[in-house]
Amino acid sequence: MSVTAPAGFAAAGVTAGLKKSGGLDLALVQNLGPLANAATVFTLNRCQANPVIWSKQVMADGTVSAIVLNSGGANCYTGRIGFQTTHATAEAVAARLEVSAGDVLVCSTGLIGEQLDLDKLKAGVWEASLALQGDAAGSPEAGLAAAEAIMTTDTRPKQAEHRSTAGWTIGGMAKGAGMLAPGLATMLVVITTDAVLDSAQLDTALRQATRLTFDRLDSDGCMSTNDTVSLLASGASGVDADPAEFTDALTGLCRDLTLQLQADAEGAAHDVAIEVVNAVSEAEAVTVARAVSRSNLFKAAIYGNDPNWGRVLAAAGTVSEADAAFDPYGIDVAINGIQVCTAGEPDQPRELVDLTPRAVSVVIDLHAGAETATIWTSDLTHDYVEENSAYSS
Amino acid sequence: MSVTAPAGFAAAGVTAGLKKSGGLDLALVQNLGPLANAATVFTLNRCQANPVIWSKQVMADGTVSAIVLNSGGANCYTGRIGFQTTHATAEAVAARLEVSAGDVLVCSTGLIGEQLDLDKLKAGVWEASLALQGDAAGSPEAGLAAAEAIMTTDTRPKQAEHRSTAGWTIGGMAKGAGMLAPGLATMLVVITTDAVLDSAQLDTALRQATRLTFDRLDSDGCMSTNDTVSLLASGASGVDADPAEFTDALTGLCRDLTLQLQADAEGAAHDVAIEVVNAVSEAEAVTVARAVSRSNLFKAAIYGNDPNWGRVLAAAGTVSEADAAFDPYGIDVAINGIQVCTAGEPDQPRELVDLTPRAVSVVIDLHAGAETATIWTSDLTHDYVEENSAYSS
Repeated sequence: MSVTAPAGFAAAGVTAGLKKSGGLDLALVQNLGPLANAATVFTLNRCQANPVIWSKQVMADGTVSAIVLNSGGANCYTGRIGFQTTHATAEAVAARLEVSAGDVLVCSTGLIGEQLDLDKLKAGVWEASLALQGDAAGSPEAGLAAAEAIMTTDTRPKQAEHRSTAGWTIGGMAKGAGMLAPGLATMLVVITTDAVLDSAQLDTALRQATRLTFDRLDSDGCMSTNDTVSLLASGASGVDADPAEFTDALTGLCRDLTLQLQADAEGAAHDVAIEVVNAVSEAEAVTVARAVSRSNLFKAAIYGNDPNWGRVLAAAGTVSEADAAFDPYGIDVAINGIQVCTAGEPDQPRELVDLTPRAVSVVIDLHAGAETATIWTSDLTHDYVEENSAYSS
Repeated sequence: MSVTAPAGFAAAGVTAGLKKSGGLDLALVQNLGPLANAATVFTLNRCQANPVIWSKQVMADGTVSAIVLNSGGANCYTGRIGFQTTHATAEAVAARLEVSAGDVLVCSTGLIGEQLDLDKLKAGVWEASLALQGDAAGSPEAGLAAAEAIMTTDTRPKQAEHRSTAGWTIGGMAKGAGMLAPGLATMLVVITTDAVLDSAQLDTALRQATRLTFDRLDSDGCMSTNDTVSLLASGASGVDADPAEFTDALTGLCRDLTLQLQADAEGAAHDVAIEVVNAVSEAEAVTVARAVSRSNLFKAAIYGNDPNWGRVLAAAGTVSEADAAFDPYGIDVAINGIQVCTAGEPDQPRELVDLTPRAVSVVIDLHAGAETATIWTSDLTHDYVEENSAYSS
């Protein structure tokens, strides 16, 4: 159930002293080969953190030997000093693991605009590299320690695993509890596999999987500066994976991690799936579902167990005709299986809707085409406000 | 200080029994002439309430004799029955005031997806029309009653007035405390003037004024289905107004009402002005400021008196290069006068920022051009969540 599940990977999670809480805050994952193929997806935010800027350079050749991740600071908007900190961290990892610094990905998460303590980072890298040399470095416990070390406001580590009957395995870990939005957001994901695939195949599979999973999670509409999803392949199984089968399995694993992220979203009391059906295209379905997922009024109503379907339609109506074709007075809405609105008019009484379960289903039928998409979001709660008004203090 | 301030207008606010609270819930404003010129701006939401659909037809000839407004129900997504209710309300007003129903604007505000009680509406129109015949119908008290009758979650009525030395006057009332977003939002505004201006001149002036005022208010990013801003001219002063002077005065009056709406936004603890300076164009400045105003993380931080400027930049970075040209690493940010970020790096310590006052100033310098715009917003508070999770129950 971790990044160490596939053969050819070692992991460690240690305490570098970056987090005020004193918990694990530095993770190191090494690809032991024989292959060092990789693919990544980064945040679309134009304000990109120094580790993102660095890691994009690393990805120029599709080769990654190791990835180092820290919580306790985003290293974003920290200027030249911040970039030197990222670079020096990669160099420290390279020296200890005897690889090229140009093959070391760096990820950071935490507060923006504060410098990271390079001495603490270097000491953490030293300690983690020692752990990697131990017998337990490929164990589930080592993978769990890495998953714990990347947590910020997460309440639990997030891991997943898939074992193919063909003989290869995928493992993964993720962190993220707020700022989850399309284009990814304060979300760090490391996925490992021992399948034999080249970097181009990994890239195709990863983009297909993230498009349908992490990109469909929109907990609070805020896009982070640091998001990175990385996929590392060791080839240690010796098995050439069928790309289509691998993509399916990877998509399933990413969906598993996505739903774990949703379930742990900051302050959430409901896990809301907004499904738009009968849209002209998948993209239009996504656009409408995303508009609803970003309505604070809708999200607050769900928190209050209020099936306020008018707020669903008001949010859908903010989407321009160019972005999604539909008749605004021809829409149906069902909430938790109760058809509260048919063709833009009240249908079943809203009192029939039971919103006490944590899982909430909103189905919006546009009657415009045949395509469907789902966006996963959370409700807007007192705990969300509390957590995000007190985060940096 | 009300819609009755200009000559040639009568107003009334009565209790029709539409609101559960039993308060005033129906307002009627009559233009006594000699002119009946008018202009309106409606919500851009594709899901438009029945009174909006009706009132757009009324505006085809730019002539308005009266406007009737109700709280206690939005009459949106109520289908054919709902449209008939709006139509019958206009007919009832027309019969009582002896005007054409095609010259009667209708506005509604409240919950979406519930039918209004037409019998109560008709009785309210009857009572209001009786009040309009009384001696006090042009008094400030009558204007205040109308302003109170359109309140929903507003905690106070909102009125403004401007008296020109040229001899004409503008008066206005507004309601709105949530769903305030561009394209207007659960915001109803009635502005009256006794200046002599034709409908085309009124339209030009109103569009210019709303573009710089109501359209720059974005309390929670949610756009309503019912927003209507109307401007009625009686010509009773007999004074031909200079269009430029009138537009300036109208803009000032709209800004006054806008800031009253902001100050009364649901649950707000801070009134936040986000000013983007040195943008390539005014439109680009608006786009960046609006992106920041819609970041729940930024808004929650302000509530927590946390000058978390990283969230300002992270939100700005979600704007595409096509929508606003700037170097994401060349931005300055000042919060309440403290320069916390210069050229994308930390400058003054964030601890120097005092966020205890209600008024908050965020200045974002893009260093990309010479244009400026301000968006007014509110913080994200426990009271906002409370009010909007319990609204319909």
